[in-house]
Amino acid sequence: MSAEPFRRSVATVCLSGTLEDKLAAASAAGFHGIEVFEPDLVASPWSPAELAARCADLGLSIDLYQPFRDLDSTDPARFARNLRRAEAKFDVMAALGTDTVLVCSSVAPDAVDDPDLLAEQLATAAARAGERGLRIAYEALAWGRHVSTWEASWDAVRRAGSPALGLCLDSFHVLSRGGDPAGFAAVPGEKLFFLQLADAPRLEMDVLQWSRHHRLFPGQGAFDLPRFVACVLAAGYTGPLSLEVFNDVYRQADPARTAVDAMRSLQWLEEALALRRPDAGLPLPPAAPALTGWSFTELAVDGVSGPVLGGVLDALGFTHTGQHRSKPVQLWEQGRARVLLNASVVRPTGPGVASVAALGLESSDPPGSAARAEAMSAPVLPRTRGTAEAELSAVAAPDGTQVFFTRTGPDGWPADFLPTGRTAGPGAGITGIDHVGLTQPFDAFDEAGLFYRAVLGLDPQEVTELAAPFGLVRTRAVTGPDRAVRLTLSVSALRRGGWAPGVPEPQYVALATDHLVATARALRAAGAPLLPIPANYADDLEARHDLPADLLAAIREHGLMYEEDARGGYLHLATDVLGDRVFFEVVQRLGGNDGYGTTDAPVRMAAHRRRRQALPAAEG
Amino acid sequence: MSAEPFRRSVATVCLSGTLEDKLAAASAAGFHGIEVFEPDLVASPWSPAELAARCADLGLSIDLYQPFRDLDSTDPARFARNLRRAEAKFDVMAALGTDTVLVCSSVAPDAVDDPDLLAEQLATAAARAGERGLRIAYEALAWGRHVSTWEASWDAVRRAGSPALGLCLDSFHVLSRGGDPAGFAAVPGEKLFFLQLADAPRLEMDVLQWSRHHRLFPGQGAFDLPRFVACVLAAGYTGPLSLEVFNDVYRQADPARTAVDAMRSLQWLEEALALRRPDAGLPLPPAAPALTGWSFTELAVDGVSGPVLGGVLDALGFTHTGQHRSKPVQLWEQGRARVLLNASVVRPTGPGVASVAALGLESSDPPGSAARAEAMSAPVLPRTRGTAEAELSAVAAPDGTQVFFTRTGPDGWPADFLPTGRTAGPGAGITGIDHVGLTQPFDAFDEAGLFYRAVLGLDPQEVTELAAPFGLVRTRAVTGPDRAVRLTLSVSALRRGGWAPGVPEPQYVALATDHLVATARALRAAGAPLLPIPANYADDLEARHDLPADLLAAIREHGLMYEEDARGGYLHLATDVLGDRVFFEVVQRLGGNDGYGTTDAPVRMAAHRRRRQALPAAEG
Repeated sequence: MSAEPFRRSVATVCLSGTLEDKLAAASAAGFHGIEVFEPDLVASPWSPAELAARCADLGLSIDLYQPFRDLDSTDPARFARNLRRAEAKFDVMAALGTDTVLVCSSVAPDAVDDPDLLAEQLATAAARAGERGLRIAYEALAWGRHVSTWEASWDAVRRAGSPALGLCLDSFHVLSRGGDPAGFAAVPGEKLFFLQLADAPRLEMDVLQWSRHHRLFPGQGAFDLPRFVACVLAAGYTGPLSLEVFNDVYRQADPARTAVDAMRSLQWLEEALALRRPDAGLPLPPAAPALTGWSFTELAVDGVSGPVLGGVLDALGFTHTGQHRSKPVQLWEQGRARVLLNASVVRPTGPGVASVAALGLESSDPPGSAARAEAMSAPVLPRTRGTAEAELSAVAAPDGTQVFFTRTGPDGWPADFLPTGRTAGPGAGITGIDHVGLTQPFDAFDEAGLFYRAVLGLDPQEVTELAAPFGLVRTRAVTGPDRAVRLTLSVSALRRGGWAPGVPEPQYVALATDHLVATARALRAAGAPLLPIPANYADDLEARHDLPADLLAAIREHGLMYEEDARGGYLHLATDVLGDRVFFEVVQRLGGNDGYGTTDAPVRMAAHRRRRQALPAAEG
Repeated sequence: MSAEPFRRSVATVCLSGTLEDKLAAASAAGFHGIEVFEPDLVASPWSPAELAARCADLGLSIDLYQPFRDLDSTDPARFARNLRRAEAKFDVMAALGTDTVLVCSSVAPDAVDDPDLLAEQLATAAARAGERGLRIAYEALAWGRHVSTWEASWDAVRRAGSPALGLCLDSFHVLSRGGDPAGFAAVPGEKLFFLQLADAPRLEMDVLQWSRHHRLFPGQGAFDLPRFVACVLAAGYTGPLSLEVFNDVYRQADPARTAVDAMRSLQWLEEALALRRPDAGLPLPPAAPALTGWSFTELAVDGVSGPVLGGVLDALGFTHTGQHRSKPVQLWEQGRARVLLNASVVRPTGPGVASVAALGLESSDPPGSAARAEAMSAPVLPRTRGTAEAELSAVAAPDGTQVFFTRTGPDGWPADFLPTGRTAGPGAGITGIDHVGLTQPFDAFDEAGLFYRAVLGLDPQEVTELAAPFGLVRTRAVTGPDRAVRLTLSVSALRRGGWAPGVPEPQYVALATDHLVATARALRAAGAPLLPIPANYADDLEARHDLPADLLAAIREHGLMYEEDARGGYLHLATDVLGDRVFFEVVQRLGGNDGYGTTDAPVRMAAHRRRRQALPAAEG
């Protein structure tokens, strides 16, 4: 491990559970410190001194006590009471052994509007704090009554001129209002007492609701956090990088998992900072080697689903070309598309189920990819190797899918397979893997976007929302350079209940072809289980697009689907769901189309639902 | 059944599932017609003619085909293509046997800005429709590019002057922008082609997202739908009242249930209209008789939880005063608080579990309450009666709780109980039931608000959101006149997953006292299982409020909680969770406080979580 230039902290409000759950998670993920969110302490049976002892045991410093609300007041009697409240909290801080309290700008009707009076009241409180060796970090809430910009908070701190009073900068409060962090340069470094970090998606909504429900960890949203932090550091800030994220999903998700995700967001952020300032001597993790394409997609099967999948691959024009030296794994090939059927993977699925077990990605440097993954807190998987078997480095993605970093060559993973004697012929015109579609666990969608970004160096694309038959579904692609690697991640917008199917959407492998109509004809001739698409769909397509008559006829004949983006068309078909959890798509991209069949997905989902209801065996 | 002056319709987009699921649900709930949402048809294997036949079989008319988007265009070639697309949809409508299509204002970059050109293009399309006996209902989307108010849509329709062109009014699009329905009076009735109804909560967010995710059925939100519809009717509209609700929860909820909820919303709305216009001769359902208080709360118990609950009731100062004549039901009394322990209720809960099975509410007219419930589509429950037993009318609330309409008197329900010979003494100062708190199934929260409003005549209060230890929780009260009946309904903001407890919050019965400190002292002396509240809580309370020293001491000693609203304090305590699902609160309201301990709830939840982890037996 390289030296770490930053202390990494996390506010307890980021994590679900009781205070005990939160501390255990933050410590296990390797955080150096925490912000104590007051309601977590108030609900805890630990006294402040007991909490301090517990943190010391876990190697966690307490970097901030927060929040103290509505300090200033136009009513002198109320201000006196607020000061008394502050003194009580200073007692708590003394017992906790922390020296900084966050005071946020007032939202109360009696908030002070007069800059001089505000500065005077802040100075009074800071003097009380200073007498006890404590200090106040003053933060502008984006929805503060009179102080809602960092500039206004700095004006108050500057006017107060108190050594125990400084600023707390929060990336959400600044960036949600379009604030410019370049201005931080005007603030002396010793006045930057604390830094809270949160990312967020761009949403057009009330900033308070946006802040309370939709914050994300750095690298998961749309804010330029690297620039923000670079400006704070350039101004001379030397305190911790501390995360403060309010998010509906994380509030109810396993805190151990959230804490690792949070840690990865800081690792990603620190790398972005180091790359931005190569002169600053910041340590860099191993870079993510380029991922240049697909080696294989591996499906977990059993004695029931294996023969089903093998039969379908055969009908899709694949050839069973290899057999693993030591495991019950078949290699099927067509063009550059390679599919492994692995009957040795233990997955928590039922009998007869097939699922995507692993992605094999071509890496320019497989050990480098693994080192990168380890540096980014990804769980590196142990591999049992036979003597003649190639080294395979793998990590687990948030949904449990294994990601292998491989090289397809004489020394690479194909050496693990003994030839069956059959060689891949022209098949049905499938040339390779276009992309793989993975349904994410409800709690893991944002985590997965950051995982593929930080660990693999892929680019998360925009999140799209679909009105699917059994509820809204969110989906986004993550893509590599030149789109040599594409994945889609999807999740139901609400965790599914009793009415909607428990697994809203199966996973899929999208295969590429240069001539979908010809491929479809070949698949039908070979008896591939193509999904029937309603005639209404083609009628609607005809009404909306000026498609050539022969293409439209083929769409009707073979149950193809078609959508367009600004560059061209996306022509595709789907098979039935196989082994209850997985299907194949075959895709032809026209004119550089960069889509994923997203607008067609509800039609495909309804068709799958009908087929699965019609085929009782397919329900497992 | 009284005559129904309105046709009741529902857009298929309101309901989850495939088109087949939606039709079945709409028909079963008693709707007269549907709006066919085009994507539902496109994804369906039924041809338009087959759908028409299916609807005819189910007794459903097809009242509208929708939506047709982006008709007008500044590009003549594109407008020509749009007309061709419209002709294709006219073919579909002819096969469906429906005569009205919804054309919504364009959101496209090429939308027409010139009022005369827009009118000309609408007239051209309407002429084509008119030639085929069809008509176009033009609707202003609140986020339309140039036409975003109903006034602008009416201006276009008026200028066009085409008999086959009229308005579609949508309550969401008008009311979300603060539009005034009084202006409808200027529109001739025959130009009002269609009316779409949706309610919504007041949210400060982008109107498109508000519309797509948060619409509600009438009576569930903040819009004044009765006034809106009254204005539409006063202008001469004679078509159906048709619901169009886009809502994330309903999109994934059981459509059979949603359809009943939707029907109830129209029944509620029609009653509000009839009450508004007593001169119009609209039929009125039986009025909801006044609910004047609590008769009893009934807990379902078994051989394990029954004795536990009985012991706790004893320690709370209750006396076992009666035994049911024919069933294993005990009556416990203290003051006007009556609790039944019923060991004969079959509920889908585990062994040793106790839960709220029924609410007994004092009705001024129990049979009238039951008639009202039946008229509002509430499931009236069958009762098996012994010979000497009082008639009890009951309905099932959305969470399965039985609601009994009763009278506590010599002829009422107490006659079903034989005296045990023990009479209730002074007890611990508990005077009655303050309220009952019911955790709602995730999909039933908005449905429940409307149920208590429409069926029982209670008033739903504001929804509050709590940052609870395992995720956000929403809660609202529903209250009767003079607060003689109060309930709280709560639900997790996201359906709980594997990390957070499956049942986020137990149910509770809040008992009233006039002297909580004295009651707490008595309960402790009697060994009641009072929930310990952390000392940090009292420290925080002391910092925030100027409480008398003796009260603060009592709060610390007995683990009381205290919060304030503008009127006064809410002083309360909780017991441990009993039988895995239920606990008691004891509450003293000061100075007319109208709260429910909501801000204290996270502290109480964390304390309950700790106790349940510490008491293995309590986990069942």
